[in-house]
Amino acid sequence: MERLILHEYAQSGNCYKIRLTAAHLGLPLERRAYDIMKGETRTADFLANINANGRIPVLQIGDRLLPESNAACFFLADGTQLIPSDRYDRADMLRWMFFEQYNHEPNVATMRFWVAFVGEDRLSELQKAQMPGKREAGQAALALMNRHLQDHSFLVGNSLTLADIALYAYTHVAPEGRFELAPYRHLSAWLERVAAQPGHVSMAA
Amino acid sequence: MERLILHEYAQSGNCYKIRLTAAHLGLPLERRAYDIMKGETRTADFLANINANGRIPVLQIGDRLLPESNAACFFLADGTQLIPSDRYDRADMLRWMFFEQYNHEPNVATMRFWVAFVGEDRLSELQKAQMPGKREAGQAALALMNRHLQDHSFLVGNSLTLADIALYAYTHVAPEGRFELAPYRHLSAWLERVAAQPGHVSMAA
Repeated sequence: MERLILHEYAQSGNCYKIRLTAAHLGLPLERRAYDIMKGETRTADFLANINANGRIPVLQIGDRLLPESNAACFFLADGTQLIPSDRYDRADMLRWMFFEQYNHEPNVATMRFWVAFVGEDRLSELQKAQMPGKREAGQAALALMNRHLQDHSFLVGNSLTLADIALYAYTHVAPEGRFELAPYRHLSAWLERVAAQPGHVSMAA
Repeated sequence: MERLILHEYAQSGNCYKIRLTAAHLGLPLERRAYDIMKGETRTADFLANINANGRIPVLQIGDRLLPESNAACFFLADGTQLIPSDRYDRADMLRWMFFEQYNHEPNVATMRFWVAFVGEDRLSELQKAQMPGKREAGQAALALMNRHLQDHSFLVGNSLTLADIALYAYTHVAPEGRFELAPYRHLSAWLERVAAQPGHVSMAA
């Protein structure tokens, strides 16, 4: 594999997913930090040379750049046991990863960002007005996972896949956005199961 | 391939993506219609038997169900020319598909839904307050595509992939959400290019 560089903000769950995937695969990953709280991903230099979309993470593979956390995880894991070899299961893994970006991240991760990083006092009136809707939609996403995990050890098949990695990232820090996880018993057991896998690394690692 | 049934609302771009993918691959697709304007995807029956997330499209493959439009497209196209055989290109295709669900659909498609389907008079105050932000973010997504298409015929590689199909679906009807496409010259040329591909079908087909 070519040299891998992760352009990141370490506390972002989207960046953590990629580190966790690389850790499971034993792939070395260099890290370049950008402080999103200081707008370091919106500079002219970043937009021109790293990501025109102004976002981290970006996975650099040699001199090629790959934005979007779940696409970067897919690149790293392509051809490995983290992506199911069965056609339906492979698509079902992507189903959970699209669910993560559409239903989970904009609610569970955004609430964490607003509450724990920006601070409620500094939110705009529009952001404050969106909070009840995001809380409700985040709870619905967690409840949907919990129901599925009632009779599944992992989200897809019988072993860890990128679906688990993608959804672990922001679920395990959901309490920082004031989501209580205790009521979601099967989800909580799954979090412990994912963290107990050989090769697991913490967000702080 | 097992019997394929698309649970859908025909005017939804997310459902159209799957029909367009199947058309390009010559796969027969049965269609079951649900009227989202009448809440037919939120009934107890739909939630229990089709999709606990209360959304269409859902692709049914024999007796297995697959929600999430882009995952359904991936299932249908797996192993075909609509998914690049190169590892980086394959991940880059997914990059655009995640961009579509995170940056494009919640803005370009939601504006269309609010303006052309719900009607501006019937929006909540919170929805109305979100419109300027969604307009700006939708324009940014279209501008990002336009810049990329300035020197690319297709989003990934030199031929049509699922990335083009996924982003064509809501981009070509963006004017229904009052997004002007004329200023995005390269994007407009790409829309014509995609529609001119052999096997293309319209949303109304």
